[in-house]
Order: sequence, then C-alpha cells, then structure tokens
Amino acid sequence: MKDQVSELAVLGGSPLFRQPVHVGQPNVVDADRLANRIADVIKSGHLTNNGPQVRDFEAEIAHRCHVKHCVAVCNGTMALQIMAKACQLTGEVIVPAFTFIATAHALEWIGLTPVFADVDAETHTLCPESVTSCLSEKTSAILGVHLWGNPCRTQRLQKLADDFGLQLMFDSSHAFGCQVGGRPVGSFGKAEVFSFHATKFVHAFEGGAIVTNDDTIAQRCRNYRNFGISGLSTIDSAGINAKISEVGAAAGLESMDSMEVILQQNRANHNQWSRAVDRLNGLDMISLPPNTVLNRQYVVATIDVDEFGLSRDQLLAILRAEGVFARSYFVPGCHKASPYVGQAIHRRVPLPVTESLLKTVIQFPTGLSVSENQISQTADLLNFIAEHSLEIGLRLQQHSSDLYYHPQDPARPTSQLSEAA
Amino acid sequence: MKDQVSELAVLGGSPLFRQPVHVGQPNVVDADRLANRIADVIKSGHLTNNGPQVRDFEAEIAHRCHVKHCVAVCNGTMALQIMAKACQLTGEVIVPAFTFIATAHALEWIGLTPVFADVDAETHTLCPESVTSCLSEKTSAILGVHLWGNPCRTQRLQKLADDFGLQLMFDSSHAFGCQVGGRPVGSFGKAEVFSFHATKFVHAFEGGAIVTNDDTIAQRCRNYRNFGISGLSTIDSAGINAKISEVGAAAGLESMDSMEVILQQNRANHNQWSRAVDRLNGLDMISLPPNTVLNRQYVVATIDVDEFGLSRDQLLAILRAEGVFARSYFVPGCHKASPYVGQAIHRRVPLPVTESLLKTVIQFPTGLSVSENQISQTADLLNFIAEHSLEIGLRLQQHSSDLYYHPQDPARPTSQLSEAA
Repeated sequence: MKDQVSELAVLGGSPLFRQPVHVGQPNVVDADRLANRIADVIKSGHLTNNGPQVRDFEAEIAHRCHVKHCVAVCNGTMALQIMAKACQLTGEVIVPAFTFIATAHALEWIGLTPVFADVDAETHTLCPESVTSCLSEKTSAILGVHLWGNPCRTQRLQKLADDFGLQLMFDSSHAFGCQVGGRPVGSFGKAEVFSFHATKFVHAFEGGAIVTNDDTIAQRCRNYRNFGISGLSTIDSAGINAKISEVGAAAGLESMDSMEVILQQNRANHNQWSRAVDRLNGLDMISLPPNTVLNRQYVVATIDVDEFGLSRDQLLAILRAEGVFARSYFVPGCHKASPYVGQAIHRRVPLPVTESLLKTVIQFPTGLSVSENQISQTADLLNFIAEHSLEIGLRLQQHSSDLYYHPQDPARPTSQLSEAA
Repeated sequence: MKDQVSELAVLGGSPLFRQPVHVGQPNVVDADRLANRIADVIKSGHLTNNGPQVRDFEAEIAHRCHVKHCVAVCNGTMALQIMAKACQLTGEVIVPAFTFIATAHALEWIGLTPVFADVDAETHTLCPESVTSCLSEKTSAILGVHLWGNPCRTQRLQKLADDFGLQLMFDSSHAFGCQVGGRPVGSFGKAEVFSFHATKFVHAFEGGAIVTNDDTIAQRCRNYRNFGISGLSTIDSAGINAKISEVGAAAGLESMDSMEVILQQNRANHNQWSRAVDRLNGLDMISLPPNTVLNRQYVVATIDVDEFGLSRDQLLAILRAEGVFARSYFVPGCHKASPYVGQAIHRRVPLPVTESLLKTVIQFPTGLSVSENQISQTADLLNFIAEHSLEIGLRLQQHSSDLYYHPQDPARPTSQLSEAA
C-alpha cells in the first residue's frame, strides 16, 4: 500500500498491479467443459444454419424471458437492425443519448434516424419527459435501453408509446437475466434484443437475439436472418445473413448453464465495491432500483468532482497507472459522435444528465477474473486517493507532461507505446 | 443397380442411398485438430475483438490473395455491406441476376439498388454487354460475382468501369483459392469480398472478409466493423458490429491449413463427375475456363431437356428420391425474388441466359463427405435414367400425384413430413 502521494504510479511509483485488472473480461466458468461442448458440435458435422444448438439456445432464452419467440443472431447490432426492419420502423426513432453507440448506429446503418433523448440521473435509462420533447411527425418508435441491466421505466414509456401511436422496443444488451416486478427483461414492449458479446453476462463469443411475443415480428426476424428465404425456391424479403453458428450457440448454452456461478461472483464483487465506495466522499454507486433482480454485470459509480477533489478522468488516470483499468463509458456521447455531431436534429433537445454522466460515470472491474483481494487492494488505494485528493490534484498539474502510464494501457501516448514494444 | 424403371425410388422403389448424399456439406479434414485449436483459443481468454487469431487469419488471406489488406468479418453478406459503404457507393449497383440472393440483398439492406445484368452462358459470370445495357445516371458501381469460382471477365469489366467512371468490385464468395493468369482472385477491382460460410471451400463456420490494395478503403472497413470506434473516446463513422470471433478465425485458419487436402478431393470428385456426365447426351458440365486454377468446390452441369428427355426438375426429383440431393441453384432468380420482382427497374434489361440457367443448372454433391463409390453409383444411376428417359417421363406424368420422396428430403410435401415425424 502507498504511504506517500509520490508513490502513486501515475507520479512515477510502482504500479499496484503488474497484470492489469480489467473491466469486461469474458466470463468462462469451465473452459474444458466449453471446449468439450464445442468439440461435440464439430464432430456432429452440423456447423451452422439453424441447427440443434441454435434451436436449443433460442428455446432456453425464450423460456427464461417468458416470451413465445426468440430468434438468435450473430450479434446484438444485427439483432437491432433486424428488429427495426421486422417492426417496419420508418423515419425517426427515439433512443437515449447515454448508451453504447451501437444502439444508434444500428438504426443509422439501415437509413433510420436515431434521435437522442436524455436519461434520468438515477437509473441512467430513458427519461420519459425528454422522450416527449423528441417527438416529431416522423417518429415511429421509442427504443429504450436497460442500461447496466437497470430496467427502463417500462410502464411510463409504454403509456407514452400508446398515447402517441408509436412502437416501443428495448435494447437489452446489458440486461439478460434481469427482472423487474417479477417480470423478466425480454418480455416488454413489442420486442427486445440481447447482445451475447464476450463481455456480456451471458455470452456466445459474439451473438445476439430478438425476443418477442408477436408471431408476425418473429416470423419476419427469422426470414430476415436467412436472406429472406422461406422455401426451397422462395424468397420473401430482402433479408441478409445474421446467423449465429452452432459453435456460437453452444457457447451461449454453456454460458447460460454457468449463470448462477457468475451471478454469485458478480453479486459478491458488487457488494464489495459498494462497501468500498460507500466509505468515500464524492463517489457514489448508482442505486439498485427497487423490486428488481439484476445481473450485476456492471459496477458503476458517479463521481462528484467538488466533493472528491479530483475529476473522473484524473481518477481514471491514477487507477490505470496502477493497473486498475476502470473506465469511463460512452464518451463522447452518441450525440457528439460521428455522424450525429453537428446535425441540426441532434441539437433539438437538451441532454443535461447525459452531459453530466459522460464526465462523471466510472465503471470498476468485475467478473470472474477479478479477485476479492484485487478489489480490496483497490479499495484501500481509493481510500488513499480520496484522503490525499487535493495534494494529488496539485501534483498531477505539475506532472501533467510526464505522467506514468501502465505498460499495458492502450490510452498511453504512442511514443511510450513504441518504447515498450 | 436398377434393372427396371419401376425400381426407381421416385416411382415407389427403394432408394439407392438410405443416408442422402448432399451438396454443400461442410469440409472438416480433422475434427480433433480443429477442436484442439479452438480449445486453445478458449483457454487463452481472448475470445473476440481483433485478437491474434483474427490478425493471423487476415494476414494469411492477404498473403494468399497478393493484396495489402484483409478485414475479416462475421459473414460474406456483412462483408458486402461494409465494402459497399467503404467504397461510398450510391444509387444503383449492377450485379448479375444469376447469383445467390445475398449479392443483391446486401446492397438493398443498406438502401442501394441492385440492377440485374445477365451472365454469359459459358462461365455464368457477368456479361459485359448486358452490364452496358444496365447503365444509368444513377449507376455508381459494378459488382461482379466469380460464380462457382469461375473468375469474371475482369479485364473487360475493368475497361467498362473505367470508361464510365464506375467502381468495380467483386463478390468472390465462391472463389477463395482461385486464380486466373497466375493472379489470385481477391486482387481484382477496387475490393473483393469472400464468404467463409460452412459450405465454402475455406470456412470459419460463418465468416467473411474484404480484401483490397486501397489503404483508405481498408481503413474504413476496419472502422465500420467495430462501430466506427477509432480510439478510446473517438467515433469516426456510423459503423456496426461485424466482428468475427477468435474461435471463428481459428476455424478459418484450420480450414486454410486443410486447403490442399480438400482441393485434392474436390478435383478427384470433379473429374469423376465429369467422366460420368460426359458419357450422357443432354447433360454437360460447365467448362473450366482456360488459364485458371479453380477450387472445384462446385460440380455444375446444365441439362438440355430435349436431348436428355427429362426436365431438370424431373431429374432432380428422381435423384432426390434416391437420396442424391443434387440441387438447382438461385431459383427463382434474383430479379424474380422479393422485393425486386415486378419493380419497373428490373424489367429494363432482358436476362435470357439467366432465365435459361434457372431451368437447366444442376449441381451435384461433392466435398469430403462424398465418396468415390457414391459418385460411381450415382453415375450408373444417371446412365440408367438417360437410357430410359422417355419411359420415365411418361411414368412420372402418370404418377405425379403420388411421387415418392426420400424421407429426409426437405422438398417433400408437408403431409408426408408429418407422417414421417
């Protein structure tokens, strides 16, 4: 542990961790079991095209989400595109500005216009009032995001959608396994999509799915996933290839079988981080919404710069130099990313909460790869930083030109990168 | 072997093969070696996001194609979309009408208009004269398809593109490993795309790639593949997720390592089929273009109905009942598929060769799963059918209401399907 500020790695001291502690390392509970499962698929000779693994994967997801249909696809972004086409969206679709860029880009890719609404400060999900401000004659749908697994205000959004004759759907990339009021995420709105990317709670290396109770939408999704082909010589629509391979689906099934183990670890990590953060002034975990079951895949806090005495980016730099690769998220913000930045339509609605979160959100490492001991050492480090924040702030200003970066930090300047290479 | 026409399975006899012989079964030379390779990837913990397997896969493809850049993606359809966006195509793109529907649908998905040109009868690739007929003020590019691995008339198409200020690119989904005049497919036009779907010569379960010598296009493709993200907090374009996982790339590498073995088998099968077909009147293998190296992944013949005495679909029905799942291809034809059929733009140019091939092309089973003995038995069967074609034709007319279907034939009517279930 550090005794003096000068021992901080960012100021030239030794890093706390040689091997960095990461956000979003893939969770694999039993690598041998997964490898064996995949070996069996390979030996079966059925490698893709809606085989038994994909059908089992879909059935299992539909069962867990209490929905009639699941259509598994190659990734969450393709799931969003296919859902949008299956729901026959047109013109503008209201999405949160504070979300991973894929929510917006998936729509833009197929010629729809994402319009950015603000999120609320508590759950980081769509703010219904802000959605109302985004409405125009061209709006066809609202696409909520259950960010960090926090369920959107589904009832208020549904009422809004009904009142204005819009479709409501959800990007549930973060939220597999989450529930609100005993009802699983996946069963809200007209349809929802999941991501099963390697960083997700349940993953298939790369993967995604659309879930819905609507027979027509499900049928269209299946059709779009496989080139619009509906028979030996019939093509019904301008579909594409969005198939997930049998190997991918097998990995997804294995991951779902491991959910309880991962959830336990996620809960333990989350609780440990909460205890650590609760001791500090100016750093606050985002609250767990009442009446929910969450997958705890994300450990998210916000920083109050005045109270903490350091900015979020200063804290990140300090932690990263020590080998704790905590992260900001969604910077620069969807509305400030290409191609949206500067477009008139994206200056229509103020986004104060998003703007604030872009500067204050910090995500701490968790998952199976992060140990109790690593969190506890990082907690002590955070304590030390908080206690000496003013002094550290001053030293950082003096040293800003020659800060120390962790050897494995992708953020460090190129000159240092080439030296290390 | 059959002695009498009534012994044909389609007329109620026993099928020649209990286990059907398929077109397009995935080639895996050594399932254990592939499974071990994937197990190593899983144990590495690096499961996706441009890891070492993907980088090796790309380097190997670029090397084999003699190009500067390869960008591996999740499938060939996404490769087409990304190539089209990276080349900044607009309006209309001329494609062959006789191709897998994905060539057209990938463009349609992102708001471009495929315009269908005819192919030539010899190579089944774009007919330059027909391309000229398709030109309009809105044409931005020509997208040739190296169908069955047969290289397009690249020089003539390049001249056409240059004369009219168009971009030229190729859908090389069928043509990995092929060469013309000593130059590998992948190195023509502005860019080319491959499919590494399980049915392809080299496969990654699902996968694809863009290859190009153009630095800017390659850079855009990389950017589009990963959400337009170009730095820790920089987003340059409306990209999506088109990543291939590390496991997929490892499968692709393993498949490339097996190319020579598969090519040998493909050549042996192809030669055996050629000898069988050459004995028959009214059935002709499509010719191997001069000065080429082909992957021989497809065994394609055309039928002359008058000479053979049976239509292509009659022959297919006879073979399928016997368990030889030979196939027609690309029916109903891109121009007759949804959403193109009936659109005025697709009635502009006559497509006589395409129309003819849609009725006459037959593809025979090949690949590692098809044995010399199976081909030889099928060759004898074809002989028998050819010798008795007139009698068979008459009997088929009498029996058209109660034809026998092979138990595993997906083409048989639903009533028979449910009986068998």
